[in-house]
Amino acid sequence: MPIIIGEKINTINPQVRRAVEEHDAGFIRNLAVAQAEAGADVIDVNVGGHPGQEPETMHWAVEAIQEVVDLPLAIDSSHPETVCAGLQVCRNRQGAWANSITLEKARLDGVLPLVAESGCWVVGLCMDEGGVPAIPARRLEMARRLIDEVERRGVSRERLYLDALIEPISVNPAAGLIALETIKAIRSELPAAKTVICLSAISFGLPARRLLNRTYLPLLIGSGVDAIFLDPLDSRLMSALKAAQALLGRDAHGLEYIAAYRSKQLE
Amino acid sequence: MPIIIGEKINTINPQVRRAVEEHDAGFIRNLAVAQAEAGADVIDVNVGGHPGQEPETMHWAVEAIQEVVDLPLAIDSSHPETVCAGLQVCRNRQGAWANSITLEKARLDGVLPLVAESGCWVVGLCMDEGGVPAIPARRLEMARRLIDEVERRGVSRERLYLDALIEPISVNPAAGLIALETIKAIRSELPAAKTVICLSAISFGLPARRLLNRTYLPLLIGSGVDAIFLDPLDSRLMSALKAAQALLGRDAHGLEYIAAYRSKQLE
Repeated sequence: MPIIIGEKINTINPQVRRAVEEHDAGFIRNLAVAQAEAGADVIDVNVGGHPGQEPETMHWAVEAIQEVVDLPLAIDSSHPETVCAGLQVCRNRQGAWANSITLEKARLDGVLPLVAESGCWVVGLCMDEGGVPAIPARRLEMARRLIDEVERRGVSRERLYLDALIEPISVNPAAGLIALETIKAIRSELPAAKTVICLSAISFGLPARRLLNRTYLPLLIGSGVDAIFLDPLDSRLMSALKAAQALLGRDAHGLEYIAAYRSKQLE
Repeated sequence: MPIIIGEKINTINPQVRRAVEEHDAGFIRNLAVAQAEAGADVIDVNVGGHPGQEPETMHWAVEAIQEVVDLPLAIDSSHPETVCAGLQVCRNRQGAWANSITLEKARLDGVLPLVAESGCWVVGLCMDEGGVPAIPARRLEMARRLIDEVERRGVSRERLYLDALIEPISVNPAAGLIALETIKAIRSELPAAKTVICLSAISFGLPARRLLNRTYLPLLIGSGVDAIFLDPLDSRLMSALKAAQALLGRDAHGLEYIAAYRSKQLE
């Protein structure tokens, strides 16, 4: 079973943005609890929007969430100071995720010393200053370079989740295939590192996005990806996850699937 | 896009069985029209149950269906005389499907002469008298032998659809993976032949079967299978089919997907 990272606490969502701006801890806590109850293994926290205040806002959000859930948190920002501010107040720092680094030197230098010190996980996007490469072989090259950079700074490749990167199929019709091929290439060429993917990007710009997300999910599970950012409150998506596990031989005789059916979780 | 073979006209379903026994042509015709309207490319016809009367019942059913749909028919029986009786009255005999043969000599000798004469398609199950082999490599061996037997009787391998065979995951938890691997092996080793699969067998014996079927479908599409027996009246399954086509780069910029959304076909 891949690790499920609940993606809901993200200021890209206007309601979350408002709650963060108003320091409405109750709203954020409820979202954390709901995702934990729906089966998330990790809770992502992204409070982006006001660069100057981001580190202190992250500090506040992490403290608020930790009061109600024991799950590890993924501290999600493109700004190293925000990632570090969040990590520093994580109670379970070793289980936390530094999300994310790229091959940009400022992010490597800004985030990895604290990752090395705390022994937490780190997400590395297979891209550099030039953007996201279109071809799986080039993404694999980025993955190799990320492993080099991470290990040079004292972080074992076992702590690294390589993000194979999904672009919207509305932008590139081959994007779904490219991400799957990248995951398979990393798994076969760089087996010590792990893979992660952010599911919902696939459907950006198209209607009936949830249908696309839940249809892509079995393909991702089949690719062997180790962790997935997704919306655990989407019950049809979580149903597809349980079905895919049974279909791909990871739920022997469908015991978990049948248990989910009996507790009326499937739809 | 794989060829969609509508599976609904099959006496395994009690309502269809009753309609066939009572020669209720209206019921059968309605099922044919509904499947055609839902997007089937071929209509399967299986009137099994009364071995002695099967050929004449098949004759009757084919005549009834042809009055209302122009689609090619798949004449579905394990009895060669029934397959031949159906094929003989098909108006579009070259587009018809002889469904099916195995490596059993009686089926090869009983069905292939008419296939050779009429130039129709033929479905070959990758099994022999000993049953269905568990291992993809053994199924591939059966596929090679089927190609030999078919070509020896004057039928080109291009007319053969090799059924990779799905067993229920409730019986063998690896069944979903085995079918996918078999399809991929046939495609890479025997590219001149085509592949076909019967989707709904995967979920036999488990609850919420439609959820399993529509979650397995994207994996099948991703495997590159050429034709699928399924229930085109399952609108969520057909929605997953359209989503999978877009996700796997076979519906450039999602134009068909968007058209299906606009005509309220997606759910």
